[in-house]
Amino acid sequence: MKLFGYWRSSAAYRVRIALNLKGLSAEHISVHLVKNGGEQHSPEYAELNPQHLVPTLVDSNEMGEFSLSQSMAIMEYLDEKHPQAPLLPTNLEDKAIVRAMAQSIACEVHPLNNLRVLQYLVDEMGLDEAAKLKWYHHWIIQGFAAYELLLTRYSGRYSFGDSVTIADLCLVPQVYNAKRFNVPLEAYPELMRVFDECQQLDAFKQAAPEAQSDAS
Amino acid sequence: MKLFGYWRSSAAYRVRIALNLKGLSAEHISVHLVKNGGEQHSPEYAELNPQHLVPTLVDSNEMGEFSLSQSMAIMEYLDEKHPQAPLLPTNLEDKAIVRAMAQSIACEVHPLNNLRVLQYLVDEMGLDEAAKLKWYHHWIIQGFAAYELLLTRYSGRYSFGDSVTIADLCLVPQVYNAKRFNVPLEAYPELMRVFDECQQLDAFKQAAPEAQSDAS
Repeated sequence: MKLFGYWRSSAAYRVRIALNLKGLSAEHISVHLVKNGGEQHSPEYAELNPQHLVPTLVDSNEMGEFSLSQSMAIMEYLDEKHPQAPLLPTNLEDKAIVRAMAQSIACEVHPLNNLRVLQYLVDEMGLDEAAKLKWYHHWIIQGFAAYELLLTRYSGRYSFGDSVTIADLCLVPQVYNAKRFNVPLEAYPELMRVFDECQQLDAFKQAAPEAQSDAS
Repeated sequence: MKLFGYWRSSAAYRVRIALNLKGLSAEHISVHLVKNGGEQHSPEYAELNPQHLVPTLVDSNEMGEFSLSQSMAIMEYLDEKHPQAPLLPTNLEDKAIVRAMAQSIACEVHPLNNLRVLQYLVDEMGLDEAAKLKWYHHWIIQGFAAYELLLTRYSGRYSFGDSVTIADLCLVPQVYNAKRFNVPLEAYPELMRVFDECQQLDAFKQAAPEAQSDAS
């Protein structure tokens, strides 16, 4: 497998954790999201991923190579193809709740705060640094406050019970990102406890942005 | 089952189509997103859905009632519990591609253009109507251009092959919404063909915003 990603991309970070938890290896290919106006816009990469986003997973089966975009789809694909160290509960209702928790980050927080949106706010809308940060903090606070409430219902050692799930794989990169933008996180004690718990695991440590070869 | 939704919510619209395709009935309960500062912020609703978002599905099993947020999680839950009229292919790779197509709308377009974001742009950031529309159009164009390319690879009668999938259930409400905001759609002929094809089906017609009892 090949994983096209970028060290600071939260979405690529999720997939790196999934690969590590499952003991799968992939060739990591860096797509620099800033250099040269963004390598994700190159014709070669756009052919692989028409959305011009990272990550893209390239895998092969009996039909040949195929490429897959969207980190949530990639994580579920890996989980179905390689069932060891499952990332979702088997029970129908539990699985749905875990997906909903993951999506509360992946569909409500991250899309508003990723690089292309922050770039648009500054470059096209003329926001200054303070206004950009206000926007960033706002959506983190909305999302984390809700997640903290979900944790009071569902958490065990991790976000949902005592096994790591895709909810944790979405949470950890988002907290990492929030720290980078200096969002105060004291209001979310259970969320931070789960974050710290995950960070004890090698699969998370080795997936961290700073541990990637393209970190700078 | 009870579905808490709102006639104009794209996310609730997705779930209504899923219920209709599967021939499932649910009590539809309207959560007015605008009236009284937004009924989704009421303490009763926030208890049900800490994210203050629609839709919420309430279903019951042998353990009692449970509530589920996030339209993507809800659609997959319904699909697993009620396998008739499947919303995903069975093949692993195909399923992953369909999920990625759905997420290209649900994680990249809709989160940037839903009501709470547009309200924030106007109320907190002071954008005028023209600037708000520019923002709205920008993310639709980005998302639909990518989707059009994905369709050239994967479409048949519908977004992926000849069966309706969750990709169509995300696409149709987003097109409906884009039309409401007067986004020119001529540049996406295949996308519009798939939209029109879906609109022929009763399950889509009956899920349309104007067909809901809380439409105004």
